[in-house]
Amino acid sequence: MREPPSIGEHIPPDRTLMGPGPSDVHPRVYAAQSEPMVGYLDDSYVEVMADVQEGLRYLFGTDNEHTLAISGTGSAAMEAAFANLLEPGETALVPSNGYFGDRMGQVASRTGAEVVSVDAPWGEPLDPQDVGAAVDRHQPDVLGVVHGETSTGVRQPAIDELAGIAHDHDAYLVVDTVASLGGVEFHTDEWDVDVVYSGSQKCLSVPPGASPITFGERAVEKVLSRESPVRSWYLDLEGVWEYWDDDPSYHHTGPISTTYALRESLRMVAEEGLEARWDRHERVAGAIKAGVEAMGVPLAVADEHWLPTLNAVSVPDGVDDGAVIDRLLDEHGIEIVGGLGALAGEIFRVGCMGHTARPPNASTFVAAFGDALAAEGANVDVEAGAAAVATALRS
Amino acid sequence: MREPPSIGEHIPPDRTLMGPGPSDVHPRVYAAQSEPMVGYLDDSYVEVMADVQEGLRYLFGTDNEHTLAISGTGSAAMEAAFANLLEPGETALVPSNGYFGDRMGQVASRTGAEVVSVDAPWGEPLDPQDVGAAVDRHQPDVLGVVHGETSTGVRQPAIDELAGIAHDHDAYLVVDTVASLGGVEFHTDEWDVDVVYSGSQKCLSVPPGASPITFGERAVEKVLSRESPVRSWYLDLEGVWEYWDDDPSYHHTGPISTTYALRESLRMVAEEGLEARWDRHERVAGAIKAGVEAMGVPLAVADEHWLPTLNAVSVPDGVDDGAVIDRLLDEHGIEIVGGLGALAGEIFRVGCMGHTARPPNASTFVAAFGDALAAEGANVDVEAGAAAVATALRS
Repeated sequence: MREPPSIGEHIPPDRTLMGPGPSDVHPRVYAAQSEPMVGYLDDSYVEVMADVQEGLRYLFGTDNEHTLAISGTGSAAMEAAFANLLEPGETALVPSNGYFGDRMGQVASRTGAEVVSVDAPWGEPLDPQDVGAAVDRHQPDVLGVVHGETSTGVRQPAIDELAGIAHDHDAYLVVDTVASLGGVEFHTDEWDVDVVYSGSQKCLSVPPGASPITFGERAVEKVLSRESPVRSWYLDLEGVWEYWDDDPSYHHTGPISTTYALRESLRMVAEEGLEARWDRHERVAGAIKAGVEAMGVPLAVADEHWLPTLNAVSVPDGVDDGAVIDRLLDEHGIEIVGGLGALAGEIFRVGCMGHTARPPNASTFVAAFGDALAAEGANVDVEAGAAAVATALRS
Repeated sequence: MREPPSIGEHIPPDRTLMGPGPSDVHPRVYAAQSEPMVGYLDDSYVEVMADVQEGLRYLFGTDNEHTLAISGTGSAAMEAAFANLLEPGETALVPSNGYFGDRMGQVASRTGAEVVSVDAPWGEPLDPQDVGAAVDRHQPDVLGVVHGETSTGVRQPAIDELAGIAHDHDAYLVVDTVASLGGVEFHTDEWDVDVVYSGSQKCLSVPPGASPITFGERAVEKVLSRESPVRSWYLDLEGVWEYWDDDPSYHHTGPISTTYALRESLRMVAEEGLEARWDRHERVAGAIKAGVEAMGVPLAVADEHWLPTLNAVSVPDGVDDGAVIDRLLDEHGIEIVGGLGALAGEIFRVGCMGHTARPPNASTFVAAFGDALAAEGANVDVEAGAAAVATALRS
């Protein structure tokens, strides 16, 4: 026998989470998360699941029956989308303009489908004309796009137009809203999107582990008429649906505590109202944007493609981005992160999601960020930044 | 826009969870679960993951480096085991003596491998001689067995012997310990098992969502020398390992709150000591067993194959098992469940796992169960049951 390990008390730090997610969790959500455990098919839990489905339908803007939370984190929901929709020999067209577009390709390739890219530079949205040309050329079965690219801070416009292009070519549109759903406007049914998925720990401010997904009727029909089995048993919609059905039966055990937390967050979304929630994100993120710009540090994304939930802030010339990030964390307890892949060292990524998207965080962040930049040698006007945040928040 | 749904306050019931899991959660684990959120690569979270790995190595009885928690519930860990080990064209040999053996086959078949069964009746363990003959006949690449079959209450003996049979035929042994690990004796290294997985919500009494798994060196080498990619990106050990490595990098976001809860549970396992924990499960479950037998209701499993963590109690002739289960829940707040598949209507399944495995639950359960059986017309000696529990707990 091994000796028992010595595991001491866990002393968690107190952070303000302004990275790409997780975001700050509301006390109501923490409290819900640790409500008493019940069985995986307890009547009370079946009601919780039904409430979650109703809350998610509102959040997604859909009447889709097949709307539920995958029992895993956001990448599991991404895999559920592609693993169910694609079969070997089919083709997926995915974007090349960010880290999560690249991940879509990796995930889709595991299904045995061929994966091709819509070429587009990091930091720019996809142009519907380019997408149309790529769809014409490759005749994909599934087109994937990212609505809010966490790696670049770009918001993809014209989702409805992309859906039209996909449908004109008998393809299905899958949209990744991991970093956007609940923070910026999205309408699954109005825009006619086939499959949409998200994560819990971003604009919903729920701990990671239960990831929203919705399948439209056409997509469900494709899944149910597959010739080959889905390559993941755990994520097979047909099995998962047995659990989320009105008359549920056992498939796997759901993440009960995280689902309690998700329910409470969706309850808060309904209380606030989606339009008010989108406005709040835009107002608080807008104050952050105004503040850093007034300091003399521009965003790395054109205004018309700005993603309020993830602000890509340029690293000033000569400044060590890692040192600024460490200072913010060590001196101010604020988490932000650096760029990924092609944007490493080029941008700071400043999240403004869910419960983090509160006015005091805008002022606190801009002041602390200005301090940290100045301490690392950047020429920034800290006072102008603070004034701009105050003005933006009052307007 | 849809109208926001009306989602009210969630009023959870207060249950004593004596089904097949989830089990009752200790207050320390609930408290840990809702400790403040941090980033998915925060230094403090990387330390939490390292503590979890050390706690899991002790729990599994292994020095395996590749010991971690899968970001999903127990069936995700089952899929991680088979999806990583198996390739198309290979063969998996799985047992037919229970529901989860059958599930192993379903999961394994998604990898593109051929799946064959070791024939054995439900309610009996596998006989190593039969396994040897089946391994000889089918020459599998992977042999799967279930250590504690939740559907039948049978404990599989001779795991070391089965490992020997597998290794003599150049096969890998995968063992499912979802319902047993931390509750009954298990030694991964001493018994030379290649891959072992479990769940969090059984004998660890952690909310579902982070599932222990360990890969031995031989198994890791097989995974790293695969010819085809793992069919799940989310569960691909090579990617998952990047996150659990000493120098971790982003693969996916872990279920941070559930991992906090798992850490606290593993800390409590280390405090109690594994031998004492196994003894406690045997003592409390033994009192339940003595109580129901003294009432005149035998277990459906031979004493030598008894799984203390899941007691398969025979449904007396003429008794409606569903009515007894409902009475226990409605009148006593105690959850037990009925039989699955071939054993539906034949057995009650009474769990005794983790924090549920406390002496007061044995007396409370036997008294309430006797009451409910009598109310449903069974001829049971309730007093003899109570006396037997008291005697067993005092011994």
